[in-house]
Amino acid sequence: MIRIGIFGYGNLGRGVETAIKKNDDMELVAVFTRRNPEDLKIETKGVNVYQADTIKSFKDKIDVLIICGGSRTDLPVQTPELAKYFNVVDSFDTHAHVSEHFQNVDKSAREAGKVGVISTGWDPGMFSINRAIMESILPNGSTYTFWGKGISQGHSDAIRRVEGVLDARQYTIPVEEALESVRSGENPYLTTRQKHKRECYVVVKEGADKARIENEIKNMPDYFSDYDTVVNFISAEELKKNHSKMPHGGFVIRSGETSEGVKHVIEYSLKLDSNPEFTGSILVAYARGAYRLNARGEAGCKTVFDFAPRDISPVDYSELLKHTL
Amino acid sequence: MIRIGIFGYGNLGRGVETAIKKNDDMELVAVFTRRNPEDLKIETKGVNVYQADTIKSFKDKIDVLIICGGSRTDLPVQTPELAKYFNVVDSFDTHAHVSEHFQNVDKSAREAGKVGVISTGWDPGMFSINRAIMESILPNGSTYTFWGKGISQGHSDAIRRVEGVLDARQYTIPVEEALESVRSGENPYLTTRQKHKRECYVVVKEGADKARIENEIKNMPDYFSDYDTVVNFISAEELKKNHSKMPHGGFVIRSGETSEGVKHVIEYSLKLDSNPEFTGSILVAYARGAYRLNARGEAGCKTVFDFAPRDISPVDYSELLKHTL
Repeated sequence: MIRIGIFGYGNLGRGVETAIKKNDDMELVAVFTRRNPEDLKIETKGVNVYQADTIKSFKDKIDVLIICGGSRTDLPVQTPELAKYFNVVDSFDTHAHVSEHFQNVDKSAREAGKVGVISTGWDPGMFSINRAIMESILPNGSTYTFWGKGISQGHSDAIRRVEGVLDARQYTIPVEEALESVRSGENPYLTTRQKHKRECYVVVKEGADKARIENEIKNMPDYFSDYDTVVNFISAEELKKNHSKMPHGGFVIRSGETSEGVKHVIEYSLKLDSNPEFTGSILVAYARGAYRLNARGEAGCKTVFDFAPRDISPVDYSELLKHTL
Repeated sequence: MIRIGIFGYGNLGRGVETAIKKNDDMELVAVFTRRNPEDLKIETKGVNVYQADTIKSFKDKIDVLIICGGSRTDLPVQTPELAKYFNVVDSFDTHAHVSEHFQNVDKSAREAGKVGVISTGWDPGMFSINRAIMESILPNGSTYTFWGKGISQGHSDAIRRVEGVLDARQYTIPVEEALESVRSGENPYLTTRQKHKRECYVVVKEGADKARIENEIKNMPDYFSDYDTVVNFISAEELKKNHSKMPHGGFVIRSGETSEGVKHVIEYSLKLDSNPEFTGSILVAYARGAYRLNARGEAGCKTVFDFAPRDISPVDYSELLKHTL
C-alpha cells in the first residue's frame, strides 16, 4: 500500500480524498491543515487531521504527500519546503512561473533524494501530455486549446469585487463555430473573442444599478473586455440551486499535414461533473508515479512529461500488454 | 541527426519516408526491400535502396531501423531477427500474439543491448496510451473503442475472395447513436452490431449474380454476419475515383464516476486522411524514443507504455515546460 498524506483540505483536498478510495493500492494516512484540526470533519473514518506545522514528524509514515494549496501564494512556498521531507505532488498552474517553481522544487527534492511532481491535473497535466504527444507525432501543424464549459474561479471572484455584487459564477464556454472550424482541419487564426465566450450569473444587492454593474463586468480589462460576455442577474436562491456545482472540461485539438493536402485531426476532450474530484484523481495517479520513480532511485522535480503510462498505471505491465495495448 | 533505415517499402514504408522529412533531427539513410532494389523508386533524393539480406553490413550506419512489414508473417520473424543488430520499431498489431512477440523481441534486443519497440501506431499505439492513462486517472469506469470511418484492409480482402467480385473497399463506421450514448456517460452495454456498421463498395464481373454476392458478403462469419452491412455495387472507375484513398480514424472514450453520481467523460479521437502516413509519423516519433532510451543504456523490448512524452518529443524539456505544459 502506498501511504498518502493530504496537505490542505479545501475542494481539491476533498477531491484527492475521494480519489484515494477508488485506488486499491493506496491508503490515506493523515490530513494536514492550517486551520484548527478539531474544526475539520473529513470523510475517511479512522484517519486523523493534524496541524500543518507538525508535518515533519510524519517523515517516515507517508510515502507521498499531495499538496492541495493554491498556486498564487501557497504552492510556491509549500512545495519546495515539503519536498525536503517527502515525495510530493502539486497542481501548480501559474504558467508564467513554472520554470522558477521547477527550479525551487528540483533543488529541495534533489538534496533530499525525493521526487517532487509539479503542475499535475488536467491543464496543466492531461492537456499538456496531449499537446506534447500530438506535436511529436504530427510535427507539422497547429495546436488549439479550448476550456469549458466550466466555472472559472478567478473570473467569478473578479465579478464579486464589483460594487453592488453579492455573489457570482462565471462560465467559460468554447465558441462552437471555432471548435468546428478547428476540427475540420481548416487551421484557422482565432482571436481571443472567437475562441471563448463568458456567461455570468450575478446576484446583486437590493436596489443596485444593474446597468452599471453589467457595464463594469463587460469592460473589465484582462477578464472580460476581450470576450463576448453575457450577464444574467439572478436571485441568491437560483444561484445556489443551479450554479453551485463545479463542472469543467475542455478540448485540445491538433490539425496538421503529413504531406501536401493530406490532413489529420487529433482531439482530446474532457467533460467533467466536478473539477476538484477529477483533478484529485489525477494527482493520486501521479502520487503512484512519484512513489515508483523514487523507489527506483530517481530524485528531483518532475512533471507529467517525465512519466510513461506504465509509471502511473495501477495495472501490471503484462496485463497492460494483454488487455490495454 | 538520428540515422533511420526503412525495412520494407509498401504503403507504411512510404508513410515513414514522408514523416522523416517533417522531422529535422532525423535523416533517412537507406531503404531495404525483398524485391529487386532496381525496381523501386523512392521519394528521397540521394538515398539508396538495398537488397534486404545485405542489411547486417549497415550495423554501424543506422541508429534505428523502422520495420514496415505485415503482422501476420513478416514481423514475427523480422523484428526479433533485426533486433540482434539494430534498435528497431515495428507496428505489430495481432493482439492475440503480442505477449509472444514481446518475449521474442525482448530476448534478441537484450542480448544485443538494443531497444526494440513493438506495436506502435495508433491502435495499438496512441489508443493504447490513452486507454492506459484514462484508466489510471479514472479507475472506476468503462472504456470504449470505436474505429472508423475508415478502410479495413482485411474486410476489403475478404470481399475480394467472393466469387464474381473483381475489387472491393470496406468502410468500418462507428454507429452514431452508440457514440452519443457513451459520450453522455450512460455507460451502455453495446453489442458488436450496436457499435459499428460496415459499408462495402464492390465491383463485380459482368453478368455476376449481385443478389448472391450481396448475400454471401452479409452472411460471412467473423467479418460481416455480426454487423449491419450495406453493399453498394459500383463500377471500377467509380471505385478508383472515390475510394482509392486510405482514410481512417476512431475514438477512445472512457466514462466513469469519482463519487456517487459525479460523472466524467474523457475522449480521444483521430480523423485521418491517410492511415499509412499517420502511422508512419508515429513510428518515426518512437524511433526517436528508441534512440534516446538506448543512448541512456536501456535495452530490451518496449511498447508505447514505456515512453514518457519527453522521450518522443523533438522539443527540449525546458521549452516543453515553457510552451507546452
